[in-house]
Amino acid sequence: MARDHVVGVDLGGTNIKVGVVTTAGDVVSSLSVPTEGQGGPDHVIDRMVAGALEVIRASGLSKDRILAVGIGAPGSMSHKQGIIISPPNLPGWTNVPIRDKVAAGTGLPTNLENDANAAAYGEFWAGGGRGTNDMVLFTLGTGIGGGIIIDGRLVRGFFDNGAELGHMIVQPGGRLCGCGQHGCIEAYASAHFTAVRAVEAIKNGEKSSLKALLDQGLPVETPHVLEAANAGDPLAARIWDETCRLLAVACVNMQHFSNPQKILLGGGMIGAGKYLLEPIRKYFLDFTWKAAKDYPLIDFATLGNDAGFIGAAGLALTEFGDGKARTRS
Amino acid sequence: MARDHVVGVDLGGTNIKVGVVTTAGDVVSSLSVPTEGQGGPDHVIDRMVAGALEVIRASGLSKDRILAVGIGAPGSMSHKQGIIISPPNLPGWTNVPIRDKVAAGTGLPTNLENDANAAAYGEFWAGGGRGTNDMVLFTLGTGIGGGIIIDGRLVRGFFDNGAELGHMIVQPGGRLCGCGQHGCIEAYASAHFTAVRAVEAIKNGEKSSLKALLDQGLPVETPHVLEAANAGDPLAARIWDETCRLLAVACVNMQHFSNPQKILLGGGMIGAGKYLLEPIRKYFLDFTWKAAKDYPLIDFATLGNDAGFIGAAGLALTEFGDGKARTRS
Repeated sequence: MARDHVVGVDLGGTNIKVGVVTTAGDVVSSLSVPTEGQGGPDHVIDRMVAGALEVIRASGLSKDRILAVGIGAPGSMSHKQGIIISPPNLPGWTNVPIRDKVAAGTGLPTNLENDANAAAYGEFWAGGGRGTNDMVLFTLGTGIGGGIIIDGRLVRGFFDNGAELGHMIVQPGGRLCGCGQHGCIEAYASAHFTAVRAVEAIKNGEKSSLKALLDQGLPVETPHVLEAANAGDPLAARIWDETCRLLAVACVNMQHFSNPQKILLGGGMIGAGKYLLEPIRKYFLDFTWKAAKDYPLIDFATLGNDAGFIGAAGLALTEFGDGKARTRS
Repeated sequence: MARDHVVGVDLGGTNIKVGVVTTAGDVVSSLSVPTEGQGGPDHVIDRMVAGALEVIRASGLSKDRILAVGIGAPGSMSHKQGIIISPPNLPGWTNVPIRDKVAAGTGLPTNLENDANAAAYGEFWAGGGRGTNDMVLFTLGTGIGGGIIIDGRLVRGFFDNGAELGHMIVQPGGRLCGCGQHGCIEAYASAHFTAVRAVEAIKNGEKSSLKALLDQGLPVETPHVLEAANAGDPLAARIWDETCRLLAVACVNMQHFSNPQKILLGGGMIGAGKYLLEPIRKYFLDFTWKAAKDYPLIDFATLGNDAGFIGAAGLALTEFGDGKARTRS
C-alpha cells in the first residue's frame, strides 16, 4: 500500500490542530484540542501524539498509508535539529527535542518547522497560493508573521529564522516592538499595536468615539477601531489608515526582495475584508516604483486556521516524500 | 576534452569586462573594453562577442574547452527571455535579445542575468561569500544594488526583479528616489544621495567646511563628506552617520527576510573602509532584536569590479553545467 497521506500538527499556545492530508493537499480528517501548555512539554507532546493517532483512526486509513508527521511550532526553534528553543507563547519550554519525541510516540518520521512558515507553505500548496511558484504570506494577527516561498521552496534561513516579516523595520528609531527592536511593522500594524496606537492617542487627549469604551474600563481592540473608522471617527480612521499604509510599504519591500507573484494576507485581521485589502492595494500602487511593472497580486489567504497543519504536512512530504508536494498546481 | 571553463561578460554603461573562468571559479584571463554605448546595441554586442573570443584566445585554451557564456547586464531585463528591456544606463536599448545574439556571435550557449545578481553570485562562488550557502550582497555605489543567495541558489524573482535591495523603503513618505518611490534606502545612503543630503543641508544654511567647495563651484562628493566628517565637521559627521545607520537598518531587514549567514558590502563606497564597516556593525547590533542570536556576519566583498563577470560565468555554469558551481567551498 502506498504511503500517500501525511499528518500535519500545528502547535499553538492555545490549541493543537491536527489533520490527515493527502499527497495532493486535501484534508481527510482533522481535529483541534486544547494545548494544556501548563502541563509542560511532555504532557503537550503526549497530546500531539494522541491527536495524530486519533486523526489517523478517524480517517479510516491504516497506519501504513501514512508517510510522515509534520509539525509547525512557534519560534524560536531549529528545523535542522528538530528542537523548540524558547517560544514566547509556550513559557518554560527550553530546548525541547520535540521532533524526535513525536517520532518516537507516533512511530513515524517527523519534521519540524516554524509555524508561520508552515502556514505559508500550506497556502502555497493548497490555498491562495496554489498555482504560483513564488509567494509571500503575511499573517496579520496579534503579532505579524510571515513566510516566503521562492521557486517552490520554503525560505528557512541559515539560522532557521527566515521570513520574520513582522520585524521588518519600516520606521527607524520608531515604536518599541515586543522583540526589542524599534520601528518594526508589527509595532504599528498588528492587531495589538493598531489598538494600542488608538488608545495612546486618546490618552494623549485626541477626541474619539472610542473614549467611551475606555471610560467604561473596557478594552479597545482593533475591530472597534475599524468600526469607529467606518462610522466616521477621524482618529480611528487615521489609525486604521496608517496600519494599511505601512502594510503596503511592507508589500513593496517584499516586491523588491523576493519579487513574488502573489502576496497573501492571512490572520485574524483579514476579518476586516475590503476595508483592509482595498487600501493596501491602493497604497501599494501609489508607493511602488515605476521602473518595472513587477507588481505582485495582493490577496487574502484562503485556508484560515488550517493553513498551519496543512503546510506542516506538505513540508513533511517534501522532506520525506518524492518532492511531489511542490508540483501541485 | 572537457568543457571545463566558462566565459563571463559584465556589460556596464562605461566598460565591458570579460573573463575566462574555470569551473572552480578561478580567472584565467580577463579584459576590459569601453562599452561605446553611443554606437547602439548591435555595435555593443559585437564588442561583447569580440571580447569573449579575445579572452578565450588570450587564455590559450581551445574553444572546445568553453562550456558557455554568461552575461551580466543592467536592468530591467528578462532572464527567462534573454532580453534587455530598458536599462537606464544604456539609453535607447529597448527589448534587445542580447542572449541569442551573443550566442549566435560566439557559437556558445549563453545565459543572461541581472548585473547586480551576477555580482552577488560571483562573491558567493569565488569571493567573500565562499563557504556560505546563504548570503546577501549590497553594492554601494552611485546607486544601491543587491543580490540574494538562498541555499546556494540565486533569487531571481517571479518577474526577474528579485533583490532590488536599493529600493527597500526605510522611510515611508521620505525622499524621492530615482525609481519613483519615496524613502528608498538608495535615496539616503547611496554615494550619490549621501553627497546630495550634505549639499542640501548646506544650502539650507547649515554650517560646514564643505561649503568652501560649493563656493568654488566644485561638486561635493561622498569622499569629501567622509573626509570632512573625519576632520570633525559636525554636519558631515551627521550625514555620514545617517548613511551608516540606515544601511544597518537595511541589514537588519535582510536578517529577517532571508536570514543569511553573511551580508557583504561591495561597490565604490567600501573605499571608506572601517569608517563604513564599523558603524554599520555597531548600529546593526544596537538595532537588531534580542529574540534570537541570528546575526549575519557583515563584511566587505572581495572581488571588486571582477565580481560581475565571475558571477555571470558561475551562473552560466549552473545553467548549462552539472551544477558544480554551487558546491565550491
